[in-house]
Amino acid sequence: MRRPDHQTQAGPTGAAGTTGVSAGAVLGPYLRTQAADFLRSLRLHRENTAPADTGSRSAEQAAAALRRSSRRIGSALRTFRTALDPLWAEQLRTELAWLSGTLAREHAYADRLTRLLEALHGLSGAPALPAARTSGEPADKGRPVLGVGAARAGALLERQLTLARTRAHSAALQALGSSRFHAVADAVALLASDVPFAAAAAGPAGELLSGPADLAEQRLLGAVAALPPDEPAKPYNEAHDAPWHQTRLLLRLHRYAHEVVSGAPDPVLAAAGHALDLHRDAVEAAGAAAAAARTPRIAPATAYALGVLHADQRHEVEAARTVFRASWPYAATGAARS
Amino acid sequence: MRRPDHQTQAGPTGAAGTTGVSAGAVLGPYLRTQAADFLRSLRLHRENTAPADTGSRSAEQAAAALRRSSRRIGSALRTFRTALDPLWAEQLRTELAWLSGTLAREHAYADRLTRLLEALHGLSGAPALPAARTSGEPADKGRPVLGVGAARAGALLERQLTLARTRAHSAALQALGSSRFHAVADAVALLASDVPFAAAAAGPAGELLSGPADLAEQRLLGAVAALPPDEPAKPYNEAHDAPWHQTRLLLRLHRYAHEVVSGAPDPVLAAAGHALDLHRDAVEAAGAAAAAARTPRIAPATAYALGVLHADQRHEVEAARTVFRASWPYAATGAARS
Repeated sequence: MRRPDHQTQAGPTGAAGTTGVSAGAVLGPYLRTQAADFLRSLRLHRENTAPADTGSRSAEQAAAALRRSSRRIGSALRTFRTALDPLWAEQLRTELAWLSGTLAREHAYADRLTRLLEALHGLSGAPALPAARTSGEPADKGRPVLGVGAARAGALLERQLTLARTRAHSAALQALGSSRFHAVADAVALLASDVPFAAAAAGPAGELLSGPADLAEQRLLGAVAALPPDEPAKPYNEAHDAPWHQTRLLLRLHRYAHEVVSGAPDPVLAAAGHALDLHRDAVEAAGAAAAAARTPRIAPATAYALGVLHADQRHEVEAARTVFRASWPYAATGAARS
Repeated sequence: MRRPDHQTQAGPTGAAGTTGVSAGAVLGPYLRTQAADFLRSLRLHRENTAPADTGSRSAEQAAAALRRSSRRIGSALRTFRTALDPLWAEQLRTELAWLSGTLAREHAYADRLTRLLEALHGLSGAPALPAARTSGEPADKGRPVLGVGAARAGALLERQLTLARTRAHSAALQALGSSRFHAVADAVALLASDVPFAAAAAGPAGELLSGPADLAEQRLLGAVAALPPDEPAKPYNEAHDAPWHQTRLLLRLHRYAHEVVSGAPDPVLAAAGHALDLHRDAVEAAGAAAAAARTPRIAPATAYALGVLHADQRHEVEAARTVFRASWPYAATGAARS
């Protein structure tokens, strides 16, 4: 691994637009800052984690910060790989993806449960289900369905998602104690002092960083342009979820690349990214409701409430898509490709 | 009953704005035209109804036309009662409401079934429910829920609503053969030749008709201004349905009063009324799905599909409210009251 001698010239905020600045002088400080954040969060996480706990508030925050810097490092390693030692970059990126994925799971189950219980509460907050004035069926006319069913559905989801969360917590602790993780931490510690650049990194930032950053943007624009059109009548068409998830990942790559090149985050991209995060959350929550409805031997009232909940979350999916489209600053389709 | 001698002056289209025209000269031709339509539809209905049928296409069209003129006559009798023999007007109005309500029921059940089956088809048109990747529950992961459940829910709804429709059909035929109905038909036949005006109807249309028509408009504007605000998070709050239903009835009274006074229907009011009709249909369809879910001993998959369907129709309720608000030509709230 080579360290071009321009590395010491790095200023506090790198801006690739500045003429004469080398790629390493922009990328180096960014990676070192992120690596230092990673190591600080790791220390905080160790200090606040007792093996038996299902995550204290401080440990949760430390894990979130760990994931935050893992994602940014991994994203920079991917987008700007031509400026870095390619083998090393690819390997560390894979390991960081494993780490942040493992850490994300516990948090995701906890969030999903909160989201579903809040939605159930909103649904059953209605005074009563409509009386059966409209049916030819005289039996059980006045009995509310969602009341009992919502409570049972909530208990079922709580049981299933708490179990999943506990398993994810154990898996995360196990991962953080593994030799695989220690290798990742060592690699990040190296990065904090000494970025393994390729020889090319001595070249001007304008070419070496802006090119890949533009490519990340073009890939995102292409994905947005290719998003399936909204079909309000069919919010349950789960086949359309995948391109949206893919767009979320590409937006993240573009957003982080933009951070590196411009030296600051873009609030418009952050808002669009937030909409896609909510989209993912609603998709997963709807999936959890549908999965719970497959539990053998549940009561019809429970299944009914889970059906209502599933549909409700699929409408949240649709709402998130609308918010994304409204927040998207580029031309919507077709034109964005040119 | 008095017939003011201005009645013979009636022109082909009454316009209350025209100075010097009497109230009777505007209201008379309108009521006579509607009464003639009523009698024509009744004849058509008799010619096309065999007692065993559940309504041929021609009989359905004739029944719809009968309801159409019943609603208009009843509405005019209510709004412009000061220009008419008050006891007679109130009595015929009540009887016409009974008649059009009885005739509407069969049609409503048929429409509701079509709406629900189409919605179920849209919901289960999705390739498959999301796989249970998100749950801690390993059992039955791949089995789609909505497929079987949607088919069963459709069969259940078809059974219940077809039964209700058949009963409504028998009730309608029975009503059309009753002495009560013959009295209504006789009263309408009288109306077709000879409107029982009050002495006041000889007065100018500008005062006698515009006053009540303005009042109908003001009542509608008040009801719209008092509509509960939309709560997108709570489309299941069925307590909000009643003021919307009330608004639908007031809009109809205003729309028909406008027809009488201006001599022509208003397409903007027709569009707003259509949105409120769809609102009512979606409310009733959601109620029918909830009612079907109360059927004893149904399978959880059936209940789940009915829950999805209920939520879907409640979102249609919300969509109809949005369409109404968008189509509403007056200021939305508060201002509309002044």
